[in-house]
Amino acid sequence: MYSVLFFPDNVVSQVEAGSSLLKAATEAGLELKSGCGGKGSCGRCVLLIKQGRIRVEDTGNLPQLKVQEGYVLACQTFVESNLVVEVPKDSRLGEHQVLVDSKLLSETLPPRQTERELDPLCRQFYVEMQPPGLLENASDLQRLRTALGKNVGKGDLGVSLDVLRRLAETVRKGDWNVTATVADFDTQPQLVAVEPGKERQSHLGLAVDVGTTTIVVYLIDLNSGVTLDKRGTYNRQSRYGDDVITRMVYAAEEEQGLGDLYAAVLETVNELIDRLVEENGVRHEDIVQVVAAGNTTMTHLLLGLHPRYIRLEPYIPTANRFPPVRAREVGIHTNPEAWLMVLPAVSSYIGGDIIAGVIYSGMLESSEVSLLIDIGTNGEMVLGNNEWQVACSCSAGPAFEGGGIAYGMRAMRGAIERIQIDRDNYDVTLSTVKDALPIGICGSGLIDGLATLREAGIIDRAGKFHDNGANPRLRKGDNGLEFVLAWGKETECGRDIFISEDDVKNLLRAKGAVFAGIRTLLKTIDYPLEGVERIYIAGGFGNYINVDDAIRIGLLPDVDPSRYVFIGNSSVKGARMALLSRAVWQQAQDVARSLTSLELSADNTFMEEFFSGLFLPHTDLSLFPSVKD
Amino acid sequence: MYSVLFFPDNVVSQVEAGSSLLKAATEAGLELKSGCGGKGSCGRCVLLIKQGRIRVEDTGNLPQLKVQEGYVLACQTFVESNLVVEVPKDSRLGEHQVLVDSKLLSETLPPRQTERELDPLCRQFYVEMQPPGLLENASDLQRLRTALGKNVGKGDLGVSLDVLRRLAETVRKGDWNVTATVADFDTQPQLVAVEPGKERQSHLGLAVDVGTTTIVVYLIDLNSGVTLDKRGTYNRQSRYGDDVITRMVYAAEEEQGLGDLYAAVLETVNELIDRLVEENGVRHEDIVQVVAAGNTTMTHLLLGLHPRYIRLEPYIPTANRFPPVRAREVGIHTNPEAWLMVLPAVSSYIGGDIIAGVIYSGMLESSEVSLLIDIGTNGEMVLGNNEWQVACSCSAGPAFEGGGIAYGMRAMRGAIERIQIDRDNYDVTLSTVKDALPIGICGSGLIDGLATLREAGIIDRAGKFHDNGANPRLRKGDNGLEFVLAWGKETECGRDIFISEDDVKNLLRAKGAVFAGIRTLLKTIDYPLEGVERIYIAGGFGNYINVDDAIRIGLLPDVDPSRYVFIGNSSVKGARMALLSRAVWQQAQDVARSLTSLELSADNTFMEEFFSGLFLPHTDLSLFPSVKD
Repeated sequence: MYSVLFFPDNVVSQVEAGSSLLKAATEAGLELKSGCGGKGSCGRCVLLIKQGRIRVEDTGNLPQLKVQEGYVLACQTFVESNLVVEVPKDSRLGEHQVLVDSKLLSETLPPRQTERELDPLCRQFYVEMQPPGLLENASDLQRLRTALGKNVGKGDLGVSLDVLRRLAETVRKGDWNVTATVADFDTQPQLVAVEPGKERQSHLGLAVDVGTTTIVVYLIDLNSGVTLDKRGTYNRQSRYGDDVITRMVYAAEEEQGLGDLYAAVLETVNELIDRLVEENGVRHEDIVQVVAAGNTTMTHLLLGLHPRYIRLEPYIPTANRFPPVRAREVGIHTNPEAWLMVLPAVSSYIGGDIIAGVIYSGMLESSEVSLLIDIGTNGEMVLGNNEWQVACSCSAGPAFEGGGIAYGMRAMRGAIERIQIDRDNYDVTLSTVKDALPIGICGSGLIDGLATLREAGIIDRAGKFHDNGANPRLRKGDNGLEFVLAWGKETECGRDIFISEDDVKNLLRAKGAVFAGIRTLLKTIDYPLEGVERIYIAGGFGNYINVDDAIRIGLLPDVDPSRYVFIGNSSVKGARMALLSRAVWQQAQDVARSLTSLELSADNTFMEEFFSGLFLPHTDLSLFPSVKD
Repeated sequence: MYSVLFFPDNVVSQVEAGSSLLKAATEAGLELKSGCGGKGSCGRCVLLIKQGRIRVEDTGNLPQLKVQEGYVLACQTFVESNLVVEVPKDSRLGEHQVLVDSKLLSETLPPRQTERELDPLCRQFYVEMQPPGLLENASDLQRLRTALGKNVGKGDLGVSLDVLRRLAETVRKGDWNVTATVADFDTQPQLVAVEPGKERQSHLGLAVDVGTTTIVVYLIDLNSGVTLDKRGTYNRQSRYGDDVITRMVYAAEEEQGLGDLYAAVLETVNELIDRLVEENGVRHEDIVQVVAAGNTTMTHLLLGLHPRYIRLEPYIPTANRFPPVRAREVGIHTNPEAWLMVLPAVSSYIGGDIIAGVIYSGMLESSEVSLLIDIGTNGEMVLGNNEWQVACSCSAGPAFEGGGIAYGMRAMRGAIERIQIDRDNYDVTLSTVKDALPIGICGSGLIDGLATLREAGIIDRAGKFHDNGANPRLRKGDNGLEFVLAWGKETECGRDIFISEDDVKNLLRAKGAVFAGIRTLLKTIDYPLEGVERIYIAGGFGNYINVDDAIRIGLLPDVDPSRYVFIGNSSVKGARMALLSRAVWQQAQDVARSLTSLELSADNTFMEEFFSGLFLPHTDLSLFPSVKD
């Protein structure tokens, strides 16, 4: 065993000889960037060796100078003695700007929820039971069932052995008056908890968005429907890869891969719950119901189901409708009897997060046709109204999340989010998250940058750089031409931050895929864009997007911006609605069944549309009348 | 810590100073008789101290001579040094003559079962699933559901996380052909197991009778309905007391009382299962369904529910209808996913064993009225037909099982089961179980003895001994007069075996209670005895009973013996029927709900009848026309 001392954190990890530095760092609790899941290809887990002996397998795309200075990739470097290692600032997974709140989300019920009766999946009843007598000798359980009467669904009261084993003492302690917590989502009411007496008991639920990048948990009072608090953080699975594909590969190829991913997501959820519990002075045991939403892969990982066949053609999940499970079966930090219910998916690529978005958007409440778009590594979109819904998913790639972009990053402190370029002298004005010194470029910055580069004439419609010789920021880099947004002296990392021709290509592919998805959806059912009344933009990324920019690059359809509605993290908000209404929960089940899912990988229209979309804004300019070229 | 060496077993127990010898013996794996549950009152856990220092709390009713010889009661004696202790033969819990088979039970289905379609609670289906494609991309679970089609009930397929986590690999290993095991007792079919391919899989179930005294397990092939094998043994809870009352007291008063009892019954059931599995060359995991029946207290203990309030007025069980639980929740040695289903009880004193008896007797199939009687410490009886059923339970006391009788014992090797007395010279001829030297007297011997003592003029109708001075076997003992059945030299234990006046009193109370129960049942609904077409005698004890004897002492009604039908262990046989037929399972639920239960403790008629029944055969001789006085 060797010791690895990481500083400036001053934490030590004890690892066996031959362990990777990435493993050592993870065990020390350090979160390094690792977009590729430890394959040596993303080149982000950079560390500086200060002392000790190592074996370097691959230096990846580290510049030679860096290698000479002692920099290594943590995942490709193995411990051969005690070590002292420095962790550079920009190798760390910074605190992500997790959207737990947005202007769209009030502390009380959203409009559609207040219109419905508050009728949560798990309800609490104070009941005064008839005390028993020699001639009135029903069992405790039957007596409670009778007292609950028609408050709950038909049939016997389902109950776990743990609760049943305490029932006799509880009802007597309360002198036959008890507060019963009953989940009632199924054909049979389920007794989750019984407490003696009438004391007002805390009665809490959680809505959880299990996102690939971030996880958000809402703590909700089930009696009032009020959201008490919210917390979000990045998904700890990120240490095993940035996107679902990398994680599925990790799950399939590493011996403990599935276990690692399962543990990481649980750890993240539980940490958020623990913080919510502590900071709000509530008790874990009072959390009696959880509704979670996520894409199909994340849902599988949350339940410990292997996502292997989601990744392999013909892309089959183990389940789309997930059985309700007890929190104790999964290990979530709530009342162990709480039911964890996961919103149903439609297919491997249309998950419960999209169903939550459909629910939350209000699309199902109106005969007006609307379009829901969730842009991430995959772009998912649903077109429909109260009678029909059609959906598809297209692989946009990770470019908007910073993947495959030289200086791409997520929307964290120091991320460039707005770019202005002076058409005359190519001077650049940048806005960054929290006005910090720039570290890289996030999705909204990339979209803005693409539009701006085109408008400044630096790139052409096909994304090729146009070198007029008068642009001091345009230069030849390792991978072709690149435009420098910020010089090393202006940046946090001390290096020049640029956008390269390769970056532009990746962005064109991403935006082309999303737009092609939308076009294919409309074409397949022969529905005109003009008939779409509302376009809902869902997901954390949507909150940063500038619609004008997105239209200018041909990512989003060229309709009046007033028709766009940002609905933020509709995954957690839809989960919350289902948590608070049995009718909504049922509606989610129904829509997951009835929704038609187009499989684009089997579709020629999509490929044609995709290639047409690899231009700025599109080969067919008539589709973008508002965009001047 | 001190060592206690028990011989002739030559086993050692390490216990703390001050531990009771009963505890030391139990930990060494020795099973001592302990009818009172370690209270010092039954005087059966006799040990002989050969060496070492002890503290004796109470010598109970041990004769002074015995105490001088070094005999002690294990439960009242505490370890104060290393010890050497001898375990006398008749202090051991011998192997009980457990009725696992009887002439009434064939290896194939009983008549009523064959008339019904074989339709077990848990069924096995070989299904060929449609392989998936890009356009046929239902989830694995949905695909399996579709393949099962109408073979199983409506609704989604319920499935545990454990099975779901293996599903994707299993269906692919079988190339989309699998054998699915589905329990289908509820509104939703439950997937218990999935195995790849078409290989004929073993598909087994268990029917279990959890009796107070003995536990019996049948191993059943669920595909054919054939009973493959049976095993029975005494319930290991006996070490904590002979009857349910003693055990309830133990559960309530000892710190780990409930845990001890729960562990003991599980251990007993599991040992029987392990033996069945080993001796029949089957696998635990192929046992996919269990149906158990027992009285209400035993059922509570099997599920780890505290029976405290069953014992205390107004005698309220935690539950009468028990939720189905997974074997893994209870710890039964089967497939961990197997459902353990317990036949419903009616009340604290009418349990699932009686419901099983009602089912098995055929009472529900006919408009003829019949009477079911199960005689144990409690006598339970059900009167009814296919339209109505009325039941009651009376406390007969443990006399028929040997409790409260000086030389009472269960029907084990050496138990006296028939007694003949020469009217002239009072010579006695005895029959014992397995023709062994007599050790004590079992229930059938006691009934026979009572009839014979009366007919020989040794006791009068009130049970008083009549001393004519000419009876060499009649003598004054510690507790009044006693009649010696066997002299010390003729017995296994070397002591005289006798029946005392106290014994006779206890027997009169027991038989009086049972008969009073029957009379009360008939009187309450004003139904004539003549209208009762069949009298079913259930329970292990019933198998040894001689109807003529039972009528002669006034235990059973004086009707033509041809109307009596012995149905043996109808608890396990009824459980088996429910295991093999969903209709029967449902019928059991229905009858448990619809059956009317009379509460005799609130009934004056019963007390009057009881006092009238404390004579041989009864105060009202017109009720026993066939009995000559």
